[in-house]
Amino acid sequence: MLTFYFAPNTCSLASHIALEHAGAEYTAVRVDFSKAEQRTPDYLRVNPKGRVPTLVTDRGRLTETPAILMFICQSFPDAGLAPLGDPFELAKVNEFNTYLCSTVHVAHAHRMRGYRWVDDPAAIAAMKAKVPQTVAECFALIERQFFVGPWVMGERYTVCDMYLFTLAQWLEVDGVDPAQFPKVADHRQRMSRDPIVRRVIASELSA
Amino acid sequence: MLTFYFAPNTCSLASHIALEHAGAEYTAVRVDFSKAEQRTPDYLRVNPKGRVPTLVTDRGRLTETPAILMFICQSFPDAGLAPLGDPFELAKVNEFNTYLCSTVHVAHAHRMRGYRWVDDPAAIAAMKAKVPQTVAECFALIERQFFVGPWVMGERYTVCDMYLFTLAQWLEVDGVDPAQFPKVADHRQRMSRDPIVRRVIASELSA
Repeated sequence: MLTFYFAPNTCSLASHIALEHAGAEYTAVRVDFSKAEQRTPDYLRVNPKGRVPTLVTDRGRLTETPAILMFICQSFPDAGLAPLGDPFELAKVNEFNTYLCSTVHVAHAHRMRGYRWVDDPAAIAAMKAKVPQTVAECFALIERQFFVGPWVMGERYTVCDMYLFTLAQWLEVDGVDPAQFPKVADHRQRMSRDPIVRRVIASELSA
Repeated sequence: MLTFYFAPNTCSLASHIALEHAGAEYTAVRVDFSKAEQRTPDYLRVNPKGRVPTLVTDRGRLTETPAILMFICQSFPDAGLAPLGDPFELAKVNEFNTYLCSTVHVAHAHRMRGYRWVDDPAAIAAMKAKVPQTVAECFALIERQFFVGPWVMGERYTVCDMYLFTLAQWLEVDGVDPAQFPKVADHRQRMSRDPIVRRVIASELSA
């Protein structure tokens, strides 16, 4: 049995969509960031990093979106959410997801989580000011170099699509005009019409 | 044929050690950061991110350390550098490597690469000041929670060991006393005596 800890409007959406697409049986548990539940002793026992997502399995916990996405792909191979039989193609999936995690999400986090890396309020404000530029640079690289089309990896719909869609939701709040990136913007629109994506987002908001 | 682009004293060391351990045939090419070669048009054609490592294969390029490490594990399965047959154990490897990439390396990067996220020199200095704390917090979590022993994942030596060793090399320059983390410090000493690790480091410095 799987238990999935998430918070709305966070990167946990990608893994949540993947669980639904895979047809996994799981219990979803909302972590209420407005009450700082991710920092409570109870939740820190679930995930000592104090973050979401966390996927608790019979064998232990998993954290970090790229790792959880790959675990879902491998645990539900019939869902076909990654090219599991081809090490190079799979590495391209991992490369894309790692870039989202270590560069794109990190650029975004400097807007609201600057305190992770600096204490001075003026420096936090200075960080925030650069977010529109750094996030736009990331999406420009995705648009020009990494997005194959019609899906991120080409003809095949993969977990990369779920993860890109999740982070692309934040463009406006990061001060970036999505219209600069027509492929990403069109992808986001197509993803947002997917019944599974709509169902997951509705369930997160009503949880 | 594989071509591996690296720079000494960077995270590319982890993939370099993995290639050697796997017995891969590859050509190693040094990217000279002192001449900003990673920003030249020639290198940006190799890797538009302007970073190392890059592994160029017959089918195209791969970037991002966790993706390259997993590709090496899957391409050279006889080397036994990851638990490829067990999706949960493999996810633990990916989880650890993703944490190093997206949190530990990012914390470290705020010391010398603060300009990525902020323009103001005072803010860059303020970022630098917090690096000893943020990096120490990461390694405290590794020491207490993630390091199983005797290797990162337990009895099995994996690519996680190569990656942890690589980032642990930076503790002193980041202002963190490695003696606070006895398991990590002991691991680093054992790794530094490994003939393959020694050969790779020597080859990088003489390239």
